[in-house]
Parts: sequence; structure tokens; C-alpha cells
Amino acid sequence: MKNTKIKVAVYGYGNIGRGVEAALSKCDDMELVAIFTRREPSKIKPNGKNVPVFRAQDILSFKDRIDVVILCGGSATDLPVQTPELALDFCVVDSFDTHARIPEHFEHTDIAARRGHRSAIISSGWDPGLFSLMRLYSEAALPCGTSYTFWGKGVSQGHSDAIRRIDGVKDARQYTVPVPEALDAVRSGNAPELSVRDKHTRECYVVAQEGADLERIEREIKEMPNYFADYNTTVYFISQEELLRDHSKLPHGGSVIRSGKSGFDNENSHVVEFSLKLDSNPEFTSGVLVASARAVYRMKENEMYGCKTLFDVPPSYFHPMTPEELRAKLL
Amino acid sequence: MKNTKIKVAVYGYGNIGRGVEAALSKCDDMELVAIFTRREPSKIKPNGKNVPVFRAQDILSFKDRIDVVILCGGSATDLPVQTPELALDFCVVDSFDTHARIPEHFEHTDIAARRGHRSAIISSGWDPGLFSLMRLYSEAALPCGTSYTFWGKGVSQGHSDAIRRIDGVKDARQYTVPVPEALDAVRSGNAPELSVRDKHTRECYVVAQEGADLERIEREIKEMPNYFADYNTTVYFISQEELLRDHSKLPHGGSVIRSGKSGFDNENSHVVEFSLKLDSNPEFTSGVLVASARAVYRMKENEMYGCKTLFDVPPSYFHPMTPEELRAKLL
Repeated sequence: MKNTKIKVAVYGYGNIGRGVEAALSKCDDMELVAIFTRREPSKIKPNGKNVPVFRAQDILSFKDRIDVVILCGGSATDLPVQTPELALDFCVVDSFDTHARIPEHFEHTDIAARRGHRSAIISSGWDPGLFSLMRLYSEAALPCGTSYTFWGKGVSQGHSDAIRRIDGVKDARQYTVPVPEALDAVRSGNAPELSVRDKHTRECYVVAQEGADLERIEREIKEMPNYFADYNTTVYFISQEELLRDHSKLPHGGSVIRSGKSGFDNENSHVVEFSLKLDSNPEFTSGVLVASARAVYRMKENEMYGCKTLFDVPPSYFHPMTPEELRAKLL
Repeated sequence: MKNTKIKVAVYGYGNIGRGVEAALSKCDDMELVAIFTRREPSKIKPNGKNVPVFRAQDILSFKDRIDVVILCGGSATDLPVQTPELALDFCVVDSFDTHARIPEHFEHTDIAARRGHRSAIISSGWDPGLFSLMRLYSEAALPCGTSYTFWGKGVSQGHSDAIRRIDGVKDARQYTVPVPEALDAVRSGNAPELSVRDKHTRECYVVAQEGADLERIEREIKEMPNYFADYNTTVYFISQEELLRDHSKLPHGGSVIRSGKSGFDNENSHVVEFSLKLDSNPEFTSGVLVASARAVYRMKENEMYGCKTLFDVPPSYFHPMTPEELRAKLL
């Protein structure tokens, strides 16, 4: 038995970075050894008093003192550059969540990790992540069927940001809400055809600047292509105090549901559902990232170099128990 | 691209064997090449007109014509002997579900499969199986928390058999039913402590022999140790016609729920739930077994010899798509 812990570094200290620090504090087999930031290190206040904070640009000099780097930046511009760059010298985990660009991000990270004999897991979290796993397993078990993914009720940061960019908006919080009737129809096993509008509604809580034209803001939100135009959207104007008091948390969740048939004449119906109800989206995502850091460490130990996703890694790698203990206790 | 299908044999043709035949008919990449039985082969009537049926004892002479054997016998006496025996010469999958004896069954199958350079997956299905996977992933993501497994509403074959062994009982069907209040309490995130009695009730539909002492039968059921004594049990006496009309299907299902906390002060709660609603327990189980046969075939191709469980095999092995397609379409 080794009594050394897996040495983890956090790269970027926002909501996810802080969530990773919290999640690591629950894992006996891992420790947070450093935080790296592009900001001025002295401006970062980790929860742990003794956690050292360094400049992102200096990370290479810590090569021998870090087992896994968890990248906590954004998918739009940070991760596409940072993950392949760091994968050459470190084992890495990220939560890259731009679904359409995953194949390309995978490719770049894979090339770097193979060259550097490192292991990487990209696109970890819950969607992509645990939700993806559920889509895979339920389709494999029930090939005749239809899969549905519902998100919410929860805060969408991307949609909140889109509202904030409208002229006259001071602050905003957007909730994605699954339509209860759609959820019920899917759970009943009927496999209904559902449009984008059928599945989710959008609720916007908006703080307007003094004297702003509320009617115009509401219209601009509701007509915004991609973000709102295809949805039934409700806009509520509230004060900054109300926003802070009632909408400062980041809850989220959702369901992956597969409705399928079996039998020689498809005479039997089955419904498989995986659902999450999360008080804190970034903290739950961080829990999956930290479990993935454990998996990446074990991949490296087993010389499984290159990039993987949750699809490619044996489930036992994510759990602190040994395969023997898992078979005896969880199977 | 190979255009050959994975050649699968079924060993034992009961409810599961028939379910596997049905499940294979939904998979383009696999075909049922033979059924093996300990009964007289001419007595077996497969659904497919051209499926050959052979004697179980002759299976060794088909060694080169079968890629994977799915064992469809019972966990009490069949599988502990058959799986290790066949694992020496064939890639095998079984649904061994006696949780307490899994480590020993794993060991026996692993030794045989390694010796014969074969691959094996034991204890596939939904519990053990998909439910086990959900316990593993949800614990890994949320180490601070409590896991719950609820079964039903569904028919327990073991409990139905136990009632049938009582003197004066002609036929019986037993449903395991989760207690709605217990489910609600767990889903609320409160992490309640629940006794065996708190979680499930048992409903028994019994056909008595003419003139039998109904009061004694009811008492014997309710007082039966392990099976019923620890549960609130209801007994309904019905006619054989009613049993056949209303209770001839084998529905089942259940939920794995993990209720956990995150944050530096455990200030955020999360509920992760995986649930199944199945019209046919044996057919859904068979769907997982067939996906496992695909995984075992790929394990053999990659020289991953020996015994594995769903914990040890990369998820992508179970799905017909390639890892590249899975990343592009399901992640």
C-alpha cells in the first residue's frame, strides 16, 4: 500500500476551480498542491489557508511535483488552447462542453498527450459526462428506442450572459425549465416527437438600468436567435436586491430518458431514466472532475497514454476502492 | 470494415435464453448461431425458424464457430459450475446475481478464462449490472453521501417460488413494492435512515388448492424468515384464471438514488437517481447481456483475457458505434 496521495493542481480559480478545491477536501486519496492563475496570485484567496497560488505561466517548473492538473477555464477560448498545451507535460482533466467541437479538441489533446507520454480525460462533468454515459449504456441495452435529454430547472450561464449583453440590462439570470407535460409524456413510454419548443421554456430575471426601455429589452430577449427565439420565454424585471437575494445560487439538473421496446414483436416497453437535482452546478461538476483526476492518475500508472473521455475509461478507475473491493461491496 | 457478424450462442433456453434471442434480433452486428440445451433439443422451439438447437454436452465441437456464449441458466446451481467450465474454451457472458458469492464466482471464471486465453463478463444485467454502475459513478462523484437501492414494483421469482413450496399452494406471484413515502424522503435529499421494513412491502397473489387452510398459508407466508418476516406483507387469494389473466407478465424496475453534499461546509445538496420501469425483466436483462457479449468480443480482440465485470470494461465496448462516432454523437 502506498501512503502517498495523488497530487492535484487547479489551473484557473473561478466557480469550477473553487468547486474542485472543495471536492478535493472530501477525498482522502488526493490533495490540492497548487493553484495556478492568470491573475495576480496575491489576489486569489483559496479556502485552504496553506494552498499556494502561482502564476499560470510558471507551471512548467512544477512538472515533477504534480500528478494531475485539472483545467478550470472556459470552453469558448481557454480550454481549446490550454488543454493540448498542458497535455504535453502533465496529466490533465477538463470539462470542455462545446459538444460540436469535441472531436477536434480530442484530437489536439490526444496528439500532445501521446507525444508527452501523458494521460488526459476531456469533457468530463455531467453533460458532457455522466449524461453521455447514460445515453451510451441505455442505447446499448435498448437499441430499439428514443433518447431524450432534458435540462433544468437550472441556471444557464450562457443565456444569462447573452441577456447581460443587451443595451440597458444591468444584470440577469436565466433559468432553463423542462416542460412538465413533455417529461410526463416521455416517462409514460410513449416516445413522443418533441420540438425544441415542446421540451423547455426559458425564464429570465432581469435587472434593467434606470430609465431603460423595458419593452424593447423584453422584445430583444424573446427574439434573440438560437438563445430564445425557438422557446417560450418569460421575462421578469426585478431589482438588483431581489436578484442577489433570490437568484444568487447556481442550481441545475436534468434527465436523460430512454424509452424503448423489446420482444420479437416489440411488445414490451421499458423506460430508463437518469436524473440529477443539483444545488450547485459547479460543485457537482467539480466532483466528477476530481473523480476523473483519479482515473487519469491510474491511466498513467497503467501506461494508458493519450486522450480519453468517460466513454473509454473503465468505471472502476473513477472510484477510490480497488476492483476487488468494488466487486464485493458495490456490484 | 468487416462485414462478418459476431456469432453468439445461447446456453439454456428459458426466459433469459428467449430474451437473448429477441435482443439479438435487434442488433445488426450480431447473430444467434446456435442454442444449447440440457433438454431434448427437439423439444425446444426457438422463435427463429432456422436457429439450430444442440445438446449442451456437445458444445465443445462448436469451438471454432462461436465467438461468444451467453449463459442463461440460474445463479443457484447452474452458473457457478457452467461459467468457469465454458470460460476455458469460449468467451462467455453471464448474469450471475447472488451478490454475496460474486467474488468467488469471479475468481473461478478468471482462472479458467486466463488459462484458455478467453474473455468473460460475469454478473451482467441490471442488478447486478447497470444499478451497480450507478452506485459506483454516483459515489465517485459525490463521496459525501448515502446510496439507496429500491426494487420494484416488480415480480420476484425467488419469493414467488418460496410461496409455491408451502403446503396447499398451487401457484403464486409475489410483487416487491417500494414504499412511496420512503422514496419521497430519499428524493427530497434528506438522507433518511431506513430499515428493511421502511423501504419495501410485499404483495402476494396466491392460488390455493381446494380445501386448503387459507389462514395457515397466510401465516406461513408472513412468518417466513428472510423472505417475508421483515416486511409488511399482504396476501391475496385468487383463482388460477385470475393469476393467468392479471399476473402472467414479469414486470420489474427500481431506483438507485444517491443523496450527497458538496461545498467546504457541506452546504449544497445533490440527488442523483437512476431508475428503470420494465415491462419484462428477462427481456431487459437480456438486452444488457447482449451488449455485454459485444464487449466481450472486443475484449478478446484486444487481448484483454480473463474475467471482468461491468466495472472493469470501458463503456464504449458495449455500444455498436466506434469510439469516434460515440464522441461525435453521444458525448
